[in-house]
Amino acid sequence: MTTADSQATKQASVQLAHGSGGSMMQKLIQDVFVQAFGDVQLEDAASITLVGSGANEADTQVSFSTDSYVIQPLFFPGGDIGRIAVCGTVNDVATSGSRPLCISVSFILEEGFPLEDLMRIVQSMADTAKEAKVNIVTGDTKVVGKGQADGIFINTTGLGLIPSGKIPLRAATIQPGDAIVLSGSLGDHGMCIMSQREELSFAADIASDAAPLNHMMAAVLAAAPDTRCFRDPTRGGLASTLNELADAAKVHMTIEERTVPVKSSVQGACEMLGYDVFQVANEGKIVAIVPDEQATAALDAMKASPYGKDAAIIGRVESLFKEGICEDGSSIQGGFNVQIRNAFGATRVMDTLVGEQLPRIC
Amino acid sequence: MTTADSQATKQASVQLAHGSGGSMMQKLIQDVFVQAFGDVQLEDAASITLVGSGANEADTQVSFSTDSYVIQPLFFPGGDIGRIAVCGTVNDVATSGSRPLCISVSFILEEGFPLEDLMRIVQSMADTAKEAKVNIVTGDTKVVGKGQADGIFINTTGLGLIPSGKIPLRAATIQPGDAIVLSGSLGDHGMCIMSQREELSFAADIASDAAPLNHMMAAVLAAAPDTRCFRDPTRGGLASTLNELADAAKVHMTIEERTVPVKSSVQGACEMLGYDVFQVANEGKIVAIVPDEQATAALDAMKASPYGKDAAIIGRVESLFKEGICEDGSSIQGGFNVQIRNAFGATRVMDTLVGEQLPRIC
Repeated sequence: MTTADSQATKQASVQLAHGSGGSMMQKLIQDVFVQAFGDVQLEDAASITLVGSGANEADTQVSFSTDSYVIQPLFFPGGDIGRIAVCGTVNDVATSGSRPLCISVSFILEEGFPLEDLMRIVQSMADTAKEAKVNIVTGDTKVVGKGQADGIFINTTGLGLIPSGKIPLRAATIQPGDAIVLSGSLGDHGMCIMSQREELSFAADIASDAAPLNHMMAAVLAAAPDTRCFRDPTRGGLASTLNELADAAKVHMTIEERTVPVKSSVQGACEMLGYDVFQVANEGKIVAIVPDEQATAALDAMKASPYGKDAAIIGRVESLFKEGICEDGSSIQGGFNVQIRNAFGATRVMDTLVGEQLPRIC
Repeated sequence: MTTADSQATKQASVQLAHGSGGSMMQKLIQDVFVQAFGDVQLEDAASITLVGSGANEADTQVSFSTDSYVIQPLFFPGGDIGRIAVCGTVNDVATSGSRPLCISVSFILEEGFPLEDLMRIVQSMADTAKEAKVNIVTGDTKVVGKGQADGIFINTTGLGLIPSGKIPLRAATIQPGDAIVLSGSLGDHGMCIMSQREELSFAADIASDAAPLNHMMAAVLAAAPDTRCFRDPTRGGLASTLNELADAAKVHMTIEERTVPVKSSVQGACEMLGYDVFQVANEGKIVAIVPDEQATAALDAMKASPYGKDAAIIGRVESLFKEGICEDGSSIQGGFNVQIRNAFGATRVMDTLVGEQLPRIC
């Protein structure tokens, strides 16, 4: 760091936008965590090779992912903090192409939190784990004083097994010509939480899409074995997810707006409140980047899942990214990696979320 | 649950003592978590078998443990929340007899938390991970509004590999005649935090013992290969740890008080404030239960470690537990599993901590 930077750090403090999933969070990760930890993997799940110790033993590869959940309100149409905490981590683990096996659960409870709510949340976690066919195997509980937390925070960390002979899926393998397949409608979770918090009566029927998608991803991989990667468009929405993928693979992407499924109630709420549905969080959707010739197979596999009925091919990966790349190749400033083409053929840039849209969305 | 129970739950809420590591926490775990999750493993780390999928592949066994850290103050003599967060989880993973490989890190940050403090904590985590020779491989950051958390909470979850041909260590294997070996002095961490919070000048030189003990445990296992189990006496202190072990193995234990290392400054602070040093938390100590004939080898291995210079054999496992056991064998009420014998030969019961001694100790 320069002296000016270190001066700025002294006065700086954490802002809500540092947790947004957008560009400020990316900067915090780079400036603070990568600086100190070095080799932290920035994909949703880290992959670890357990070196076989016997002479004829093959290496076992596992995938490992963590998330803390601070969502408010705790209970909402379509789910609760417990369901989100299981789904979010199971989905992250599965994006690597692994089979999620188990999760750990750690609670931070505020003194005075109703035991009845805790039991309801814990039961929801047990039910969701059963739905995902994943075991909850170990846990921890901490209690802090009144006013030192906001009811309940939950961390889950998941462990998955990469099938023998496979390697973890990586965004860097994305190729020009690949199809972008989305498993269903955008914005349901984010607009549900927003409508609950603001008590918007016109949006009362919007429910969160929170769902465990590991078995849908396994079905896609079986049907489209050369799938490049999966990603779940949570904080920062589809826009942040696609921009991250495009950056990682150094490619352009074009999304056809008319093909993107969005429920009319969600679209209406977004327009009324001035949100870009592409930046709104989802908790039960997956994006798959798939070679063109396997796109239909991937789509059909999604549609056969109870969580993927509205799946659609929403765009393509274009040529390799050329413009706007820095000399050292490390970062892209002012590029236009992802564009949206509307029904009339006009295009606009799909921007990564900057700042905070809606705190405590997950 | 009975109707009366369910009525009680409706009015009940989380209390600080539910996070104490003592009997109220055990009851919460049984009544809420085991009720819903069923097969959660109650040892410090869960063991998972990754079934080999090839014809000649051996199963790989891993160990998996999670903890959230809410300690206050964040910085104290001998460490900080970052060091505790790495050591605590690495030590828990290693207690199963596994070799800790990597940890995940998840932050919950309060809006307005100084970035400078965050960077200091993150650097401490990186340094401690290096000291433990464990990689930090994946992470997550959430931010909540001002007043919705207390500065910073950290979850770490660790993954370890059980050496090929070994099985995870289990408390149930403890046998009468085994030696109880403690790796150093008791109470340093808890009394350090207490003295910092209360600004006790007479205890200003007490430093936390926070340390990564995975390599010391590996050395003990190499020297004393039939070691029954390890446990780190954190929340609830040595008393809770030994009572849990005695319960799990259905044995009595006797501790010889004069052999237990306690620093005079810690002893003095405990006496002045009315604490039982056996119930005070440690963050850099390990208890090993070892067959008598390997006890000296285990002790020497501890003493050879920089973290085990004051190690001592502090007691013995006695006959199998007979009295006070319930008919169904499931719980022990009013038993006297662990007793302490003083220098004059008189014995007293070493009780599990009831209620909360010192909130936010880790």
